Amino acid sequence: MKSDAAQSTEIVRVRGNAAHPSSDWLAIERPLEIRARAGAGSTRIVSTTMRTPGQDRELAAGFLFAEGVIAHAHDLRDLKAVEEDAVLVELGPNALQALEAARRPFVTTGACGVCGRSSIDGLRPERVEPTTPGWTVSAHVIHGLPAALREAQATFDRTGGLHAAALFTPDGRLLAIHEDVGRHNAVDKLVGTLLLDDRLPADGVLVVSGRASFELVQKASAAGVPVMVAVGAPSSLAVEIAQATDMTLLGFAREQRFNVYSGARRLSGI
Amino acid sequence: MKSDAAQSTEIVRVRGNAAHPSSDWLAIERPLEIRARAGAGSTRIVSTTMRTPGQDRELAAGFLFAEGVIAHAHDLRDLKAVEEDAVLVELGPNALQALEAARRPFVTTGACGVCGRSSIDGLRPERVEPTTPGWTVSAHVIHGLPAALREAQATFDRTGGLHAAALFTPDGRLLAIHEDVGRHNAVDKLVGTLLLDDRLPADGVLVVSGRASFELVQKASAAGVPVMVAVGAPSSLAVEIAQATDMTLLGFAREQRFNVYSGARRLSGI
Repeated sequence: MKSDAAQSTEIVRVRGNAAHPSSDWLAIERPLEIRARAGAGSTRIVSTTMRTPGQDRELAAGFLFAEGVIAHAHDLRDLKAVEEDAVLVELGPNALQALEAARRPFVTTGACGVCGRSSIDGLRPERVEPTTPGWTVSAHVIHGLPAALREAQATFDRTGGLHAAALFTPDGRLLAIHEDVGRHNAVDKLVGTLLLDDRLPADGVLVVSGRASFELVQKASAAGVPVMVAVGAPSSLAVEIAQATDMTLLGFAREQRFNVYSGARRLSGI
Repeated sequence: MKSDAAQSTEIVRVRGNAAHPSSDWLAIERPLEIRARAGAGSTRIVSTTMRTPGQDRELAAGFLFAEGVIAHAHDLRDLKAVEEDAVLVELGPNALQALEAARRPFVTTGACGVCGRSSIDGLRPERVEPTTPGWTVSAHVIHGLPAALREAQATFDRTGGLHAAALFTPDGRLLAIHEDVGRHNAVDKLVGTLLLDDRLPADGVLVVSGRASFELVQKASAAGVPVMVAVGAPSSLAVEIAQATDMTLLGFAREQRFNVYSGARRLSGI
């Protein structure tokens, strides 16, 4: 079953040490191209952004407004959804001038893996290290990770405003934790630390404090992370990437529960 | 008082209809430039990202790794923090080649208002409509907004993975709600809808389901929103922008409480 904003997926629900097959709804995450036609001239892509389908025209209008390209609805001569994942805008003269004068390329993202790409090609991770570590991780250890993350974060985060990314051993020992207002930065800091220490591929369990979006799973894949645990929800594209790269992806890890979206074979004790 | 990751700010704490001055810690959000030196040649900016200061070298290394520019620590001939908000990398020959071959400009963000800018200039909103609406909003109405947002969201979001942005009247009536995996997209969809309906500037209270980062406040400012309420924490730069643009910014709105970071004069009933 499928709608614009959500799609159903098969999962394994784990509660304590009991596991049973179930289904879950995933927020759909997919790239949108915003294309501009310059009068009778050619069409150029002004932005590619990861978004949940729906209100694509409004998204394009709001984006162009925030960027200062348009100031009023009448700056748009035409605005229409074309194909499944693109919006075509035809700009009036003032808006065209503003677009040309723009001090920066128009790129945006909810997923940094996409920033600045001028098309939706090449969204798959370019470098994945499929790891088949000699270990599994027990549900018991997984259940303890969210609290361990919060405890480690409490030391640093007085603000309640920082995302965290932490690497644990398969038996639940904290190896490293990094924090940032940007969740992707927290993962970059963690992976960068491992790289500078010559400790890649990352042989452990990556835990992130929030949701698992496309770019986090992509960055984790590139670093060779076999198991990723999100306290929040994964997006549809996050699950796709995890499945395609053979990563174990768990979500909604809290209160002795979690959902398995990919790679249940790396779990034990259930 | 100030550290790398957090800074203190003066706020007003509201609980029920009681208000008292206090202080709060804000997660610091500031742009970082990643610059690359091409051998003995010139220096170019490869990325500007909004981040929390600290582990900037590691952040740069992790970013370049995720982008496929470097594969190992020895692809970095040098890596050092320069000035307060920049990292300079000197790349080995393989990495230089990978950088040149990159299919996209290297841009990233925790704040789309920054994406693709090649320097940290021009981060202030370019167009702000300082609004002085003829209304105030009561603490009682504010206290009801998070529940109203959740209720409206429950209708749409079966996934737990969507951010919401909603506009309410000053007396708490829902005007519009939009959802997306990307929080900035939710705001763009909302503002785009208002723009297409010729209803800008946005004369109401904007409520966002998560944290208030720089780019959300910037987008709200551009749309002329006088009052913004975040269920989560604001960043340091979000508060700066709100103060600079005379926007009322409230955070941690939940359970009959909220913090006032800017513009307390638009609040009544406390």
